[in-house]
Amino acid sequence: MTLDQIATPALIVDLDAFERNVATMKAFVEARGLRLRAHAKTHKSADIARYQIEHGGACGICCQKVSEAEALVAGGVRDVLVSNQVVDPTKIDRMAALATRARVLCCVDDAGNVADLSAAATRHGVTLECLVEVDVGAGRCGVAPGPAAVDLARAIAAAPGLTFAGLQAYQGNAQHLYAFAERKAAVAAAVALTRETVALLEAAGLPCPIVGGAGTGTYVFEAASGVYTELQCGSYIFMDADYRRVRDAADRPMGEFAPSLFLLTAIMSHAKPDQAVCDAGLKVQSVDSGLPVVFGRDDVEYVACSDEHGVIADPKGVLRLNERLKLIPGHCDPTCNIHDWYVAVRGDRVEALWPVTARGLAF
Amino acid sequence: MTLDQIATPALIVDLDAFERNVATMKAFVEARGLRLRAHAKTHKSADIARYQIEHGGACGICCQKVSEAEALVAGGVRDVLVSNQVVDPTKIDRMAALATRARVLCCVDDAGNVADLSAAATRHGVTLECLVEVDVGAGRCGVAPGPAAVDLARAIAAAPGLTFAGLQAYQGNAQHLYAFAERKAAVAAAVALTRETVALLEAAGLPCPIVGGAGTGTYVFEAASGVYTELQCGSYIFMDADYRRVRDAADRPMGEFAPSLFLLTAIMSHAKPDQAVCDAGLKVQSVDSGLPVVFGRDDVEYVACSDEHGVIADPKGVLRLNERLKLIPGHCDPTCNIHDWYVAVRGDRVEALWPVTARGLAF
Repeated sequence: MTLDQIATPALIVDLDAFERNVATMKAFVEARGLRLRAHAKTHKSADIARYQIEHGGACGICCQKVSEAEALVAGGVRDVLVSNQVVDPTKIDRMAALATRARVLCCVDDAGNVADLSAAATRHGVTLECLVEVDVGAGRCGVAPGPAAVDLARAIAAAPGLTFAGLQAYQGNAQHLYAFAERKAAVAAAVALTRETVALLEAAGLPCPIVGGAGTGTYVFEAASGVYTELQCGSYIFMDADYRRVRDAADRPMGEFAPSLFLLTAIMSHAKPDQAVCDAGLKVQSVDSGLPVVFGRDDVEYVACSDEHGVIADPKGVLRLNERLKLIPGHCDPTCNIHDWYVAVRGDRVEALWPVTARGLAF
Repeated sequence: MTLDQIATPALIVDLDAFERNVATMKAFVEARGLRLRAHAKTHKSADIARYQIEHGGACGICCQKVSEAEALVAGGVRDVLVSNQVVDPTKIDRMAALATRARVLCCVDDAGNVADLSAAATRHGVTLECLVEVDVGAGRCGVAPGPAAVDLARAIAAAPGLTFAGLQAYQGNAQHLYAFAERKAAVAAAVALTRETVALLEAAGLPCPIVGGAGTGTYVFEAASGVYTELQCGSYIFMDADYRRVRDAADRPMGEFAPSLFLLTAIMSHAKPDQAVCDAGLKVQSVDSGLPVVFGRDDVEYVACSDEHGVIADPKGVLRLNERLKLIPGHCDPTCNIHDWYVAVRGDRVEALWPVTARGLAF
């Protein structure tokens, strides 16, 4: 089957670009003696997670929800960090049950949660490895770096069934700052807070086997810090339109990654001479980080989006009905979560269908 | 099962509010002798479509894609307008095949498309009813009102296997104008263009059995026009946060509809005194029309969204871990499209699970 036989709209992965991206990150972490715990929240695919582990230098994966972890362990992954808080009693129980079948780690930012996790781990006869999440600038979950983190680490270390495994110190807000200097400064601040907290923990007899964080927008900074030991990049495999804007000629930390994820779309209306309408709208993508960008074309532009339509400015009237375009999604993670499968193509040929294993699993 | 036993985040429908909304619209169209062709793009559910037909005064449904039409016909619907262009050869063929099992209508804005539809209808021995889509201000698909529409209607009427069924004249841009006067003026302009085109068609011996359009934001205006005969409202059953903003004290065209669709979410982190984090982010909703609104609470506010998290401002620190909130989604249609099922509840009790039958079907 070839590209032009795929029903549109469809989510496609260019395998050549994808494999190069994966190999590039592998070489990066191996050259620096760092671990990569690739973030599966980006793709939610057991096929891709296994590929990252088998061919991409990943020691395991991150995911964000217990249901994702369950789906990916069922799909063959054996080392999962739920890089998030798990506080609901039913979810805690499911996560502890999962630890009978895989290495399971999670994040903690609440003292009461430690007792609940410990009880579940004991009940299931497992060990849950806990990272203390510190808020190093993302302004979301996490305790303050410093003494609060040490107190929580102590509680974890003392709790039956739990081990203190280190820190989760992800600066999510820094990833999409467009200016190189701003990204670098935001991560420098996060690194300083993390370093200080690691030192306090060590002084308290609580060393950190894992200091985790970093994303596709900033990983070069965390990698150079000497503090972070596990990078949690996810989007590097696909490189969406917003990450494409997060590039800087002075340093080009992401210049090595190429877009590999596309929405294949077709023109379905061209009743106005200078405007076409394509069949990819809000129901096949998330536009929270901006509209998609038409790949490889500077003569046409995706300018507006409604539920089932994309309006394409076509000032020279070059597009034809049923003509196909490849769109680089604005934001890959929530876009992939809408689709049931990836159509993996090499050149013009369809090579595989990968289910989006954990699609819609948000609980 | 009760509301507090549902794993969060989940998409829930309050059946009392939903049924009242459906009944209200039924009474509205019946009092005016109009047809309601409810838009199933909102919910993509065969259960809800059948309910609208059996209990809500709907003569049939609209949908936007052939795959949606197939799923809903398989689910028991017998009268479907694909309120969109269908130009891909494979999709045309599938739509003609579907017309062996249900009444099928579609929209046309291209002369070349008429020949393709005609050939497929002839091949399958069916009749496809075609509406000429006119652009009455939405700026998307559709030919210009007036003579261009007449030319296209003539071509349809002359084509074997097709019948000219009238006009599709949906003013999508008017639906979400917040000011009553602006909405009214936008629809008045659309009505004038539509009336003129209907008159031209009648003069040419091409009467319009259907003049279709209108949405939840403007249907009172189209209903009063004397020109439109089929209303295509969709969101009235759910009333999302953006449609809640489209209300006007002077006329209150939507004052009668209550929110019935909610994201049930739970607090998963409260490490800062004045800020909580809930488990409903971009992967359970579309924020293209704004963030969700916390239902029934004015002491807390959903202020930011990332892939798996919602940040809740909690200035008085009243929220507790695992406490649940009901969110009114910003935009219902693309939010429903992410979920696999609706949890239908009456009061606190779960009464049904409705699959989102056509979830993700975009082709």
